[in-house]
Amino acid sequence: MTTGSDSLLCAEQNFYGPDSEKIYTSGSMHPIKVGMRKINLSKTYRIHDRDFSFFPLYDTSGPYSDPSADINLAKGLPCTRDSWHEQRNDVEPAPSTAPSPMNGRQPKRAVQASPVTQMHYARKRVVTPEMEYVAIRENQQLEAWIETCSLNKNSFKPVTPEFVRDEVAAGRAIIPANINHPELEPMIIGKNFRVKINANIGNSALGSSIEEEVEKAVWACRWGADTVMDLSTGSNIHTTREWILRNSPVPIGTVPIYQALEKVDGIAEELTWELYRDTLIEQALQGVDYFTIHSGILIDYLPAAAKRTTGIVSRGGSIIAKWCRAHNRENFLYTRFDEICEILRTYDIAISIGDALRPGSIADANDQAQFSELKTLGELTLKAWEHDVQVMIEGPGHVPMNLIAENMQKQIDLCHGAPFYTLGPLVTDIAAGYDHVNSAIGGTLLASLGCAMLCYVTPKEHLGLPEKGDVREGVIVHKLAAHAADLAKGSPVAWLHDKLMSSARYSFAWNDQFNLSLDPAGVRKIHAESTPEQNGKNAEDNFCTMCGPNFCSMKKNQEMPGK
Amino acid sequence: MTTGSDSLLCAEQNFYGPDSEKIYTSGSMHPIKVGMRKINLSKTYRIHDRDFSFFPLYDTSGPYSDPSADINLAKGLPCTRDSWHEQRNDVEPAPSTAPSPMNGRQPKRAVQASPVTQMHYARKRVVTPEMEYVAIRENQQLEAWIETCSLNKNSFKPVTPEFVRDEVAAGRAIIPANINHPELEPMIIGKNFRVKINANIGNSALGSSIEEEVEKAVWACRWGADTVMDLSTGSNIHTTREWILRNSPVPIGTVPIYQALEKVDGIAEELTWELYRDTLIEQALQGVDYFTIHSGILIDYLPAAAKRTTGIVSRGGSIIAKWCRAHNRENFLYTRFDEICEILRTYDIAISIGDALRPGSIADANDQAQFSELKTLGELTLKAWEHDVQVMIEGPGHVPMNLIAENMQKQIDLCHGAPFYTLGPLVTDIAAGYDHVNSAIGGTLLASLGCAMLCYVTPKEHLGLPEKGDVREGVIVHKLAAHAADLAKGSPVAWLHDKLMSSARYSFAWNDQFNLSLDPAGVRKIHAESTPEQNGKNAEDNFCTMCGPNFCSMKKNQEMPGK
Repeated sequence: MTTGSDSLLCAEQNFYGPDSEKIYTSGSMHPIKVGMRKINLSKTYRIHDRDFSFFPLYDTSGPYSDPSADINLAKGLPCTRDSWHEQRNDVEPAPSTAPSPMNGRQPKRAVQASPVTQMHYARKRVVTPEMEYVAIRENQQLEAWIETCSLNKNSFKPVTPEFVRDEVAAGRAIIPANINHPELEPMIIGKNFRVKINANIGNSALGSSIEEEVEKAVWACRWGADTVMDLSTGSNIHTTREWILRNSPVPIGTVPIYQALEKVDGIAEELTWELYRDTLIEQALQGVDYFTIHSGILIDYLPAAAKRTTGIVSRGGSIIAKWCRAHNRENFLYTRFDEICEILRTYDIAISIGDALRPGSIADANDQAQFSELKTLGELTLKAWEHDVQVMIEGPGHVPMNLIAENMQKQIDLCHGAPFYTLGPLVTDIAAGYDHVNSAIGGTLLASLGCAMLCYVTPKEHLGLPEKGDVREGVIVHKLAAHAADLAKGSPVAWLHDKLMSSARYSFAWNDQFNLSLDPAGVRKIHAESTPEQNGKNAEDNFCTMCGPNFCSMKKNQEMPGK
Repeated sequence: MTTGSDSLLCAEQNFYGPDSEKIYTSGSMHPIKVGMRKINLSKTYRIHDRDFSFFPLYDTSGPYSDPSADINLAKGLPCTRDSWHEQRNDVEPAPSTAPSPMNGRQPKRAVQASPVTQMHYARKRVVTPEMEYVAIRENQQLEAWIETCSLNKNSFKPVTPEFVRDEVAAGRAIIPANINHPELEPMIIGKNFRVKINANIGNSALGSSIEEEVEKAVWACRWGADTVMDLSTGSNIHTTREWILRNSPVPIGTVPIYQALEKVDGIAEELTWELYRDTLIEQALQGVDYFTIHSGILIDYLPAAAKRTTGIVSRGGSIIAKWCRAHNRENFLYTRFDEICEILRTYDIAISIGDALRPGSIADANDQAQFSELKTLGELTLKAWEHDVQVMIEGPGHVPMNLIAENMQKQIDLCHGAPFYTLGPLVTDIAAGYDHVNSAIGGTLLASLGCAMLCYVTPKEHLGLPEKGDVREGVIVHKLAAHAADLAKGSPVAWLHDKLMSSARYSFAWNDQFNLSLDPAGVRKIHAESTPEQNGKNAEDNFCTMCGPNFCSMKKNQEMPGK
């Protein structure tokens, strides 16, 4: 397999487990290098006229999987992206802002408040380093193979930097990348790219420390989270976020109203635009890559929400609703939307327009409250685009299988092609303890139909805050969902991954199966426990451990006369 | 809530955990009583003009959840169904057959080999006790409520015994109920009824004992398995099955060719029709309720299968293929199909026509081999119906999300409305360790579109044989899938369940949420662990344990002015 780009192989590697190593692909337009996980296969598999003795995987783990990286959580990751922008003269140090206490970097802002967003550059037909980065990432070094293969009678093309640019310019995809998050490895969210997943972390008044949350963020990236939202609501909210940002190779999202509410001691009625605006700027300077802002919930929609089985289940939405009712005034996140966009565009923060009225139960799915708000989200999308602000639209929630397609269609119709970012949907209300599975079921269908990013749900949903083990479970089942949706959408890279897995399965190449799975360490452990002593612990036995040697169908296939 | 039938309440109950008890509803046509789990709610919920202070749940656990039952695994469960058939003069003791070593019962067979199947009676317009039993079960004592409610502008009717009869007569549903499995609590499989799930158990040459398998079978019913397949392939296959049948309140399925192969020491080429026929009769006399028989794999289809990524992944299918190739003769399960049906109809064993050519990888999904066989399955369906034999059709396998609907449509078109019974489908090949989730994703979609029963998959799929914990995980996530499909199909009973759950959630009735969930004990444990000491372990706290008191959206809803 040739890639046209050189690869920097790393000598030692324990992070991924055996047979995998970190590789880098350099850009041809910009001084970038894109990390991937290279799986060295035990056999050579011939697929669509190409031999595969290794397979490069999209990798969200950043420098943590590079044995040569110097990891120091107290200082944070290297500020790589700063060097990409050295020749750009459109940003300047933000005055009166203290440098980061961790790495000493002075936060930046746009010169003269002009837009510095990826959408701004894309519309000027500029291919930024971020755009080239995501193009290389999405292709997984398989450009040459993609060009020649056709699947299900469709032919595909590799993702080019120009295609990335055009999708961003059209608003169909976003690259959340705050200029103050130089540690970031850029990624793209849009229906014509790999389906992404987000992991929520963050402490609440009920427990967990800064260290625990940073560890959860890194842990989530290790298992495949494409973005992380810090939903902390307890004390130390600023410092927790600083630690998470400085150590995060993936985009970080927040819901700024949570911090604003802490500043008024939890009393929603005391929120003001000025306090909220200052919170946005505080977080912008720290480097948050996207904000969830509940601008679409209008006072007119509250009566419909009040009639529901579960009312308003969005935390941000319920805060705003309480404020609107107390003051009998329109949502200030709606009335101040232009001012919000003016802030976001000067740091390149994407807006994830929150679905405050998402259904929190099957009975409330696809109701008047939900779709009224969705229409407003579409109107706000156009307004944000006027400011060159990158937009995604948040979606449900709880939706039964038969109503999921309508959600996707309405979002496409009302929101002008902006990417859809949804929680689940959960397809039943009764799956407490198994809501990660519940969410993966609805999410796979919705993503197959075009949803661009799935917010994970953990087994703790509805019950408590996730621990590390829950984060892992949540990430893995949503990686599964995202990958299954990529297959459904005809992604050649996803299809090749499955083809290699099944080829390894059919030839009893157990180590290749382990390495190509979503959870190599876990699978290796299960297999070892299932292989009884008398047959030896040899992972290259020529039969399946489920059926034993006499009943192995694959073994029988290969023994068959005439085969 | 009135039901028109009396309920026998049991005094003590530990099996279900707190707040639940076993109740029985008597039949009005036959001397039957149908067990359910009654959840006593902590509050009264008003839903569609009815008050609910308790909720009866469909229950697969049989006498094990009845504290007055005398459980003795060495003797088996009571032979209740024998008393239902006392006035039936169409069965007689099978001559030259030893009584069961466990309960001393003499196996029966039809008089003069005439059909005694549910389909036979249904076509004669007879409502059997089994039909009345399943009608009561499917309604969950909610007849009166179902009559009055309308959901999503559809109105529904309760399931009547006559409707059950008509569905069975038309072949759209089956009630697997061997006359030699008198311990059985009848259930129905068909797209116009609740979606059912099957749990596979069974030892292999690689391990596990009879006791372990019996315990797994009971354990599977405890968590909600509607049927159990005993796929044992090791030694003691006859005795293992005897123990499982005598202790099983749910239908038991087998794949008789596995035992036949054991009788020829694993050498497929040495199989004969006579040996297979004798195996069918042996298992028929023990009481197996349905047989998977791979009659649809024809010698003409083998070349297409040989070209696949993963060939033939059905164990039975690979055995038959090997036999066909060795003898260069047509599959004897096809050529002897009429003789097979003549056996099945005299014990009322349903046939689950096996999909020997199901795809074992995404690359093989919906291919020529698969659909060729499906066409033959449709032809065999008509032939079985000529013998009044109840039929279901087995389905894939591995299928990406975008090809699932085609599977369902082809099955409907080719198989004349016979119920579809599928494994998954798995929507990707790379989810080893998480194939239970993988299967639940595909299964939910397929069942939403009409698939009648889902075969569970456990986390051990592709890796080893399931342990008790794996059985529980597999059953619960497929119950989730089946329930979500019921919701999608508009089942009022499923919808009410979710509505009660969300009403409990919105009113912070934690115990009701635990009891209405798929896994009360597990959820109770997670919640207790998530509730920190300082807030007390009070499960009736008026805020959600995820967000804490200040950020609880539901609490905010209820505090809202004007609410």
